[in-house]
Amino acid sequence: MINFETSPDKYRHWKLKVDGRAATISMDVQEDATLFEGYKLKLNSYDLGVDIELADAVQRLRFEHPKVRVVVITSLKPRIFCAGANIYMLGTSPHAFKVNFCKFTNETRCAIEDASRNSGQRYMAALNGTASGGGYELAIVCDEIYLVDDGNSAVSLPEVPLLGVLPGTGGLTRLVDKRKVRRDRADVFSTLAEGLKGKRAKEWGLIDDYFPTSKFQEAVAARVQNLVESGNDERPEKGIKLNPLQVEVSGGGREYKYVSLKLNREKRYADLTVRGPEADAPTSVEEIEKLGDAYWPLQAYRELDDALLHLRINELETGLVCLRTEGNVDNVLAVDKTLVAHKSHWLIREIILNMARVMRRLDLTAKSFFALVEPGSSFAGNLMELALSADRSYMLNDPETKVEIALSDFNAGALPMSNGLSRLQSRFLAEPEKAEEVFKHEGAFDTEEADEAGLITFAPDDLDWEDEIRVAIEERTSLSPDALTGMEASLRFAGPETLDTKIYGRLTAWQNWIFQRPNAVGPEGALTNYGKPTQPHFDYKRT
Amino acid sequence: MINFETSPDKYRHWKLKVDGRAATISMDVQEDATLFEGYKLKLNSYDLGVDIELADAVQRLRFEHPKVRVVVITSLKPRIFCAGANIYMLGTSPHAFKVNFCKFTNETRCAIEDASRNSGQRYMAALNGTASGGGYELAIVCDEIYLVDDGNSAVSLPEVPLLGVLPGTGGLTRLVDKRKVRRDRADVFSTLAEGLKGKRAKEWGLIDDYFPTSKFQEAVAARVQNLVESGNDERPEKGIKLNPLQVEVSGGGREYKYVSLKLNREKRYADLTVRGPEADAPTSVEEIEKLGDAYWPLQAYRELDDALLHLRINELETGLVCLRTEGNVDNVLAVDKTLVAHKSHWLIREIILNMARVMRRLDLTAKSFFALVEPGSSFAGNLMELALSADRSYMLNDPETKVEIALSDFNAGALPMSNGLSRLQSRFLAEPEKAEEVFKHEGAFDTEEADEAGLITFAPDDLDWEDEIRVAIEERTSLSPDALTGMEASLRFAGPETLDTKIYGRLTAWQNWIFQRPNAVGPEGALTNYGKPTQPHFDYKRT
Repeated sequence: MINFETSPDKYRHWKLKVDGRAATISMDVQEDATLFEGYKLKLNSYDLGVDIELADAVQRLRFEHPKVRVVVITSLKPRIFCAGANIYMLGTSPHAFKVNFCKFTNETRCAIEDASRNSGQRYMAALNGTASGGGYELAIVCDEIYLVDDGNSAVSLPEVPLLGVLPGTGGLTRLVDKRKVRRDRADVFSTLAEGLKGKRAKEWGLIDDYFPTSKFQEAVAARVQNLVESGNDERPEKGIKLNPLQVEVSGGGREYKYVSLKLNREKRYADLTVRGPEADAPTSVEEIEKLGDAYWPLQAYRELDDALLHLRINELETGLVCLRTEGNVDNVLAVDKTLVAHKSHWLIREIILNMARVMRRLDLTAKSFFALVEPGSSFAGNLMELALSADRSYMLNDPETKVEIALSDFNAGALPMSNGLSRLQSRFLAEPEKAEEVFKHEGAFDTEEADEAGLITFAPDDLDWEDEIRVAIEERTSLSPDALTGMEASLRFAGPETLDTKIYGRLTAWQNWIFQRPNAVGPEGALTNYGKPTQPHFDYKRT
Repeated sequence: MINFETSPDKYRHWKLKVDGRAATISMDVQEDATLFEGYKLKLNSYDLGVDIELADAVQRLRFEHPKVRVVVITSLKPRIFCAGANIYMLGTSPHAFKVNFCKFTNETRCAIEDASRNSGQRYMAALNGTASGGGYELAIVCDEIYLVDDGNSAVSLPEVPLLGVLPGTGGLTRLVDKRKVRRDRADVFSTLAEGLKGKRAKEWGLIDDYFPTSKFQEAVAARVQNLVESGNDERPEKGIKLNPLQVEVSGGGREYKYVSLKLNREKRYADLTVRGPEADAPTSVEEIEKLGDAYWPLQAYRELDDALLHLRINELETGLVCLRTEGNVDNVLAVDKTLVAHKSHWLIREIILNMARVMRRLDLTAKSFFALVEPGSSFAGNLMELALSADRSYMLNDPETKVEIALSDFNAGALPMSNGLSRLQSRFLAEPEKAEEVFKHEGAFDTEEADEAGLITFAPDDLDWEDEIRVAIEERTSLSPDALTGMEASLRFAGPETLDTKIYGRLTAWQNWIFQRPNAVGPEGALTNYGKPTQPHFDYKRT
């Protein structure tokens, strides 16, 4: 079982160094500290274990080191920055793992861009050696890229010419859509195994500048200093600590304080329940800072995040997740009110940004989600996003019992989807005015009001409820998991496209296709034969 | 060898009836008139042969019947409109054919939307019976959808629940992005094999209205009449005839009047040359109408279209196309000038729209394109789009010889890509001002000017030219064809996304992936086992 929790004192592959307003994340991958057997992590290549540490460092920099304004990503190995995802690991991994590995690494990279855009922590790639494949893809998520000019070091995307697959972490999309490299140059670069060195790499827009070896550290340091001084926002001196999550793991699932994951493995579905906050949640920033990571919106969403990652990687056969909430609607709305009131405070901002990332992780999870709204649930405000993110929702219609959902300011855009819209906007694409109208409703919605307002899918009555849910679960879990993945990827992200949706939608889909093709993974495929004395042989039919 | 040319007198599956300002395309598929052996086209299901006739009808309505303002698509079979792509045909087709079949049908459907948007020919789906799968996908490209309410007829997308694949011709994307059906309803609809009938289908936005059997024809006729009368543009009385293309086919390629396709099968590349217009091209609309389909911009692009389709379907192993032009730059520019001057005339408008569709067909072709600019070439104006559409371009740099390229107003947006941008805008995404600046250049560009302006990729000199081209061809054709397809799909369409790019990029990629998965096409897959007494068995791992 793969564990997604770590902390700097346990890192095996990275060194996190914080020095005032600048931090450095240095890659120094330990060859033998792999997640599985059968490969060595040479030349700063990575597997999922390496990326879990990077994701942790990025997250901690936001919460624990909010003073930091510039983060430098570099390598402690001479002449090599990073060689990308380990090929032998990829070559020996089953399809589902490969795809989920790529998704996690993509999310880590999007989180870096999110930190730069929304948390004022700018990232700089200091390429003290060659950055190839995923190595260059890591550089290209940074705001600035500097390459050493030592006559040898280059940036490259050798996946197409050497491995017969695509760069898997957004490289192609960021080339033309983020750095806006001319498409014919992007074509040349992406088919050139050896890549490009300083001068031409700069001319083509692949890097921002290059410096000779003797001046590299100095030039990077000057640029860091410049960035540190150019930011004019006040940075807080002190962060809060992210402690390890407390989770009770059993064969049947995972129990956190606010999140409960129950696995019905034989029936291939899971029950995922989020418990709302207590009645006495703090309302002042001082109290919240004191509570730190025990504050409900931070703890509950960290737990939810962990549960989702666990489901993705460790429970591959679970195809459907039934989302439930428990607790008091008013308590959730009270927390939302506090968050909105203090949203300009750095910690509250980070808590909200984290909630948004966790919800996007849910949107991007290749499993079906049904939201079940029953008595005692608390689908309100931020927790209502769970119902809005679900592929469909069922709300009990029983005049005898109180069942309700509610909206808050939080549903108006605080937790944007990857397409840049709120979940209400995505839902009401045909009637944009409805995404605003629903806020005019006074108080909570009972089932008939919710149905009328278009906020739920089905409203079965008490007599039908159990049967209808049971049949819906059985039907869903009987369908082709691949067709569902493709269908959900198409239906969930209607409306505008962004860099993120292009990466998760278009690029990922092509990569998944190629990851299935005999030309890559067959006995004569390029990925299979990489590093062996044998040569790949292609079926040259173009599709 | 599949032939893409046909005409109404040869149709086996459709009846085209034109009656003043309304036309009807009626589907009446002949079960036994299949393109291959091994399946029967029952229940108005279709194979590529059926769709080639539909594409022809749509094209002819624009050129031969410009008076038509409303086109009704309906069926001559009782109780069934269309059952979509034939499953047995799909189940027995090789992967590359399946993918290219879907691409062609997608292009036909986008051409219908193009006719509605740009040619003032509105489409109406009169569903006199059930429209399932590709049948409903054909309906959803129409501007209006009416369903008979006979207690039985429904609209449905049963691909996911019955076949373990996706609706392959844009259905999912058009559900949420065109008709903006709420995503949870789209989820329910796309997993409901039996689909939805009139009342709920209308409530969910899947159709525009429904009528009882006894009133169906009358209601549709009234709606047609309404549409015919509501358009207030003048429609021309008379069109021009699209005659069969004259092509000399040999083992080594295809020779048309203005297009020459030479196949180097052993080396897996093709030379595709377009010859520019003669010096005496007409300049008045009257002369052009008289010339009809022999007018260069119409004939040359129809020939180019046919050559591209041939390459795609009949020459699967050809991975690279070297694009060349011949002729006189000034003659091409003169034609552009004429077209721009008369662009509001219906025939000129149709000629330009057709050129744009052919160029988009090229953009969407899963083969690499290199443009080779040599002495005697005529990459100017509309033909310069060939160079701009290529993955890269090589222009000879020889001060002793005249080699030039040129721009015209045509390059400023007359032939938009699927992403809605001109090819110059897509090229200069990083410097939008450059897409306008290049027009300030006086006259043609010699090689150094073209290089300086960023209009070409490489400018090898006379000594290097032959070797460089030879090596580039050898390298390109040695790469994994799958990785190239995914790479080109990612690099060619930077910038904004549209319904079209979502369909060709995102939806197609997911479908291609699923078309490879054992859950669909393996011995126990759903597509393989459809209609057999055996049941599909899935590997339920979610990716």
